Amino acid sequence: MKIGILGQGRWGITIKKLLEENNYEVLGFHHTDTSWGEKLDCLCVALPVQHIRETLLRFPSPRCPVISLSKGLEIGTGKRASEIIKDVWKDVIVGALSGPNFSEEILAGLPAASVVAAEEVNLGKFFQNIFHSKRFRVYRSTDLVGVELGGALKNIYAIAGGLCYGLKLGENAHASLLTRSLSEMTRLGTAAGGKMETFFGLSGVGDLLLTASSIKSRNFRLGARLAAGLSLNEAIAMEPTVIEGLPTTISVYKSRLFTQQKKPIADEIYRILYENKKIHESVVDLLERRVGEED
Amino acid sequence: MKIGILGQGRWGITIKKLLEENNYEVLGFHHTDTSWGEKLDCLCVALPVQHIRETLLRFPSPRCPVISLSKGLEIGTGKRASEIIKDVWKDVIVGALSGPNFSEEILAGLPAASVVAAEEVNLGKFFQNIFHSKRFRVYRSTDLVGVELGGALKNIYAIAGGLCYGLKLGENAHASLLTRSLSEMTRLGTAAGGKMETFFGLSGVGDLLLTASSIKSRNFRLGARLAAGLSLNEAIAMEPTVIEGLPTTISVYKSRLFTQQKKPIADEIYRILYENKKIHESVVDLLERRVGEED
Repeated sequence: MKIGILGQGRWGITIKKLLEENNYEVLGFHHTDTSWGEKLDCLCVALPVQHIRETLLRFPSPRCPVISLSKGLEIGTGKRASEIIKDVWKDVIVGALSGPNFSEEILAGLPAASVVAAEEVNLGKFFQNIFHSKRFRVYRSTDLVGVELGGALKNIYAIAGGLCYGLKLGENAHASLLTRSLSEMTRLGTAAGGKMETFFGLSGVGDLLLTASSIKSRNFRLGARLAAGLSLNEAIAMEPTVIEGLPTTISVYKSRLFTQQKKPIADEIYRILYENKKIHESVVDLLERRVGEED
Repeated sequence: MKIGILGQGRWGITIKKLLEENNYEVLGFHHTDTSWGEKLDCLCVALPVQHIRETLLRFPSPRCPVISLSKGLEIGTGKRASEIIKDVWKDVIVGALSGPNFSEEILAGLPAASVVAAEEVNLGKFFQNIFHSKRFRVYRSTDLVGVELGGALKNIYAIAGGLCYGLKLGENAHASLLTRSLSEMTRLGTAAGGKMETFFGLSGVGDLLLTASSIKSRNFRLGARLAAGLSLNEAIAMEPTVIEGLPTTISVYKSRLFTQQKKPIADEIYRILYENKKIHESVVDLLERRVGEED
């Protein structure tokens, strides 16, 4: 079986290594390529979400199952990676891989687990069979919407986690922030069609607590640097690669899908990033919200 | 209003400080005392769970609302702190306070949030009113069972978190472990009568991810030391105070409430602690469990 990987960033390279360990022939494609050269049996899309549409438009449809490895939402449309892929290549069947997976740990040989999502069970089994190994344990879900939204939304809360860390608010405050983030992420995700239980699994709470707790996350580092007093542009300049939480924050703030939903944390992150709201004011506004029953 | 605190450990002292900041008169009682001296308006019980029954038996009923600050399950009976209190003082009304709260951070003045639980709404409001402040935000729940079980069970998974840390399995593996722990804790907690949503709140996932991720937790440190090769007795000897996860692990393993429930992580912790199972064998057994859909 020949498996293609479109996108040569760190995550694409990591998945290439895992697939080669599983004895597949893996062909890497650069975003500037324009053809597949030969017939593929499966294609992985590992591009920054804002570049998926333009990149895919340059390629013919691969005419094989396609799986998104990208976590984010497109600005303007609010679409998930698999939706963008289906927009461009109308004849393909699409799934997604998402979970608590820092690439550097997987490259270092440490164990990890993840989720493949496909609405059709047999497609899910097809992807699971390709990716699963003893050290990269792959679970299956039919909730493509929920799995992709968990991976996308958690980037916003990772910025919040980094802010909390940078402000030295402590581990108690951080745990509370993550709990409220999970609640908010679940509210947004189910409003957009995801299943509630998905947000309590590896691609939901698992990815959230990993990303929003660790300096290994670009989104978390961004938040920590803003808290330390850097401007947004200075903080962005310190990362050589795309910080998915930034466009996703805009997309969520502006998407009609989410305007009816209570999302105080995501809203404050937007105001800090794009309306020059002072971080300390945001923290005070969040902390002074009415306390009653938990919801 | 006069508020008593029975138990002069670190958590009792921390709550005393918070209540004094809220302008209450707070009277501390040692576990060797035998009377209240004067009429109390509220009593906090902050004793190690295995000592609650014997200690309370020496005191007359305080004849005021009682709130448990203790997180654990009694060996033999499997009972929660509030159940033990009601066993001894049959005429009192009882609630519980539980959340992601490391005492040292609260003593240092950092912000935190927690949950008061009481089956009767007005009792919950009474406790909330007493404990809530700008820097210690208190939410309310009527799910006393779920709130107490979250606080008790999470100690087992904190030992597992420490093992994962000590074995240097990485952050991906740790996030997966916490996700599976949340799922297991929710399964056990709802089987025992707690509400599912409680386990996704501050006293559930919030306390779990705090305790099972931090060297500030005694249970986590115990796990880390076992992973580093210390014997159980050596690891226990390094902590001057009670490690609630140890009796809770026994209680859950032996309680009839939980025997019908799938609980692979709690079972492996029991085997490591009390049946001399090698840690690496437990990890392999957990990692080689069948992978299908997430549940």
